[in-house]
Amino acid sequence: MKQDVHVVLSGRWLISMDGNSGAREEAGISVAIAHDKITEIGPNLAAKYPQAEHLACPHGLIMPGLINAHTHAAMSCFRGLADDLPLMDWLTQHIFPREAQLTKEIVYHSTLLSICEMIRSGTTSCNDMYLFAHEVARAVEEAGMRAWLGEVFFDFPSPNYGALENGFASVEELFEVYKDSSLVRITVNPHAVYTCSPVLLQRAAALAEKQHALLHIHLAETKDEVRSCVERYGCSPVQHIENLGLLNERLVAAHCVMVHAEEIELLARRKVKIAHCPESNMKLASGIAPVQQMLNKGLTIGLGTDGSASNNDVDMFGEMSTAAKLQKVHDLDPTSMRADAVLRAATLGGAALLGAETEIGSLVVGKKADLIMLDMNQPHLTPLYNPVSHLVYAAKGSDVLHSVINGKVVMRHRQLTTLDEAALLTEMRRIGETVQRMR
Amino acid sequence: MKQDVHVVLSGRWLISMDGNSGAREEAGISVAIAHDKITEIGPNLAAKYPQAEHLACPHGLIMPGLINAHTHAAMSCFRGLADDLPLMDWLTQHIFPREAQLTKEIVYHSTLLSICEMIRSGTTSCNDMYLFAHEVARAVEEAGMRAWLGEVFFDFPSPNYGALENGFASVEELFEVYKDSSLVRITVNPHAVYTCSPVLLQRAAALAEKQHALLHIHLAETKDEVRSCVERYGCSPVQHIENLGLLNERLVAAHCVMVHAEEIELLARRKVKIAHCPESNMKLASGIAPVQQMLNKGLTIGLGTDGSASNNDVDMFGEMSTAAKLQKVHDLDPTSMRADAVLRAATLGGAALLGAETEIGSLVVGKKADLIMLDMNQPHLTPLYNPVSHLVYAAKGSDVLHSVINGKVVMRHRQLTTLDEAALLTEMRRIGETVQRMR
Ligand SMILES: [Zn+2]
Ligand SMILES: [Zn+2]
Repeated sequence: MKQDVHVVLSGRWLISMDGNSGAREEAGISVAIAHDKITEIGPNLAAKYPQAEHLACPHGLIMPGLINAHTHAAMSCFRGLADDLPLMDWLTQHIFPREAQLTKEIVYHSTLLSICEMIRSGTTSCNDMYLFAHEVARAVEEAGMRAWLGEVFFDFPSPNYGALENGFASVEELFEVYKDSSLVRITVNPHAVYTCSPVLLQRAAALAEKQHALLHIHLAETKDEVRSCVERYGCSPVQHIENLGLLNERLVAAHCVMVHAEEIELLARRKVKIAHCPESNMKLASGIAPVQQMLNKGLTIGLGTDGSASNNDVDMFGEMSTAAKLQKVHDLDPTSMRADAVLRAATLGGAALLGAETEIGSLVVGKKADLIMLDMNQPHLTPLYNPVSHLVYAAKGSDVLHSVINGKVVMRHRQLTTLDEAALLTEMRRIGETVQRMR
Repeated sequence: MKQDVHVVLSGRWLISMDGNSGAREEAGISVAIAHDKITEIGPNLAAKYPQAEHLACPHGLIMPGLINAHTHAAMSCFRGLADDLPLMDWLTQHIFPREAQLTKEIVYHSTLLSICEMIRSGTTSCNDMYLFAHEVARAVEEAGMRAWLGEVFFDFPSPNYGALENGFASVEELFEVYKDSSLVRITVNPHAVYTCSPVLLQRAAALAEKQHALLHIHLAETKDEVRSCVERYGCSPVQHIENLGLLNERLVAAHCVMVHAEEIELLARRKVKIAHCPESNMKLASGIAPVQQMLNKGLTIGLGTDGSASNNDVDMFGEMSTAAKLQKVHDLDPTSMRADAVLRAATLGGAALLGAETEIGSLVVGKKADLIMLDMNQPHLTPLYNPVSHLVYAAKGSDVLHSVINGKVVMRHRQLTTLDEAALLTEMRRIGETVQRMR
């Protein structure tokens, strides 16, 4: 084991998220990594493992990589194409017509682009829902990212699989191809109650059940969704899903903006996992999810950026800061969504949401080596009284210096090791021209 | 004149904020600078001025430097010291006891630190209110920042000037010392209606009148402020200030969270300038200012970060993104605070707030050379469909490559030219230890 240690990170602060969210401060505090796992945490481990690569930073802060609990990575190709519009205009005039013309190549490169942005801003795992999921998975493996992902289902024909029957066949194939992957886990992704019939929702749930996989859906995102659900099914989206038997611990529900106190109780009883996406909910004027109330009821909360067409980034540091501040002003209570609660949602909360809290989300010997180091020697982070406060309220994605996923250094001194960033940007400019011409 | 051009910036996009907020896209688009002014804007000016320093970037975006309309730069020494607390606990147990022990040296270095962060994130002017204003001014001039600033007044003794009489003498002296400064403009700063007696407010207003200076105050920030004002004076803070004769075009009112429709009308009629500080209002759970309504009534709006103890940064790019998204979710309208309106508030709006719209806030020949260049060749900014959208929703302070203030290059390839950043951070760590021990 000792000779297998191939990377040692050393800094000054360590936030393990194991137990409380506090920081351990000790010059030379280190994490040793062998294969895909954390093997040791302690002071000055570099000398003990002379064969290992040593990533040291005198003002370094070592912490678990962030977990983006809800995103559509490939939507990076639509960022900034249309903003400040009513939701339905944005979707029906700008996004849907272009999504109908997407290709494998566009999804593949656009996913790589978001992964590039995610790694550069400290994210090491994401929960993705999109079209052409085979391409998403290919990009994830190439980039060395960790991802839960799946093909999105809805009632209308897909530009990828065409008729729904093919969609299910395609996802069955995904489960088969990635059953032994160390980075990719397949999920089942019905889009939402307003785009999926009850039959589709139940069929998706049955597949998730059979595959012991997560069922990932947009739920109770907007007032319009609630209104149309009441019109069609005589009840709210949460109740509709409950009536169909889908509310259970396998369900990852993104947004849950429009939920009242009784529904929060129900979601908690059913052990549903909530992916909170405050910036997207703000930009689309959907509303503010009552996430502190959810935490009070014991719900598992992850933090997500949603796609970068409605955010407009996939930067979890910015999302943490917004999540903390937005809840305070919503609740008119400065103690709502404290920094430690937000940091937990962005790490261990996301891991629990994914059913992976024994593998990722905290720095513990034996867990997967998914971790980042920030350089805290910055004007906006000095003086440093409370590392957790700084991470949530002051740090930026660009303060992340090194990133390790599954034991592999994927960013070293802000240089990605798995991707040719310059070539990718050139390709994305070409794709941007194509996307702009689509109508 | 031609031989006086000493800097030429060249990029691909230029956002002048002159007329509409759109971008001009043209390879090699350039701005030429002589002394403190913009002397020419056009394609490929580097060849025309071979003697000038040439700051070129193939994917560069040139725009006016951002204007922070309300801040307390020196509060960087309190960042992260105490968060997630009820406002009164935070102020009375953590901030006020320490502010009472501040020294010249702490204010000087802490102001430099915030300026360092401001320049690094694209701000070229700020409107500061704090204690030890002579030290603030000294830091501003040394750093080559542009600032409106003044000594804060309140009814209780100041750690700087002691009794109020000395405070007025100190500010009169500031006006004298800086009357010919190219970077520093002195303002008159009564803290708020709950900390300043009517007599003090009127005396401050008379001084501002005499000096043709701005009167800068916190106004209608919280529900508590309104409640206590009604208790003491029988009316709201806005009405109180109106009754005292202070509502006029000289007044810069920070926050204005707690204002109703009739008060907005009144503020508009009196041509009061509003410094909107959304992140501070969120973090302190104060509320959300109805800033789109204010814009609809023709009010002049600037954007401010407030101090970094309640934000917790002085990054105007983050503030722009939050300002746009927060208003949408507050108004439940995705067309509220469009990207162009936010960018205007952060540039020309701030200039108008400061009474300096003929000097700064847009890129026009003859105006002061206060401008920045961003490198848009980044994963989170590619593809680029709409530069204004990207600036507000996707760009980060760390994308700013070069910054020019008053014709001087103050940041070149992300290196500050006026400050020794490493020495400053070392000094600030020492100050942090002192501040933490204060009780
Ligand atoms: Zn989504
Ligand atoms: Zn303030």
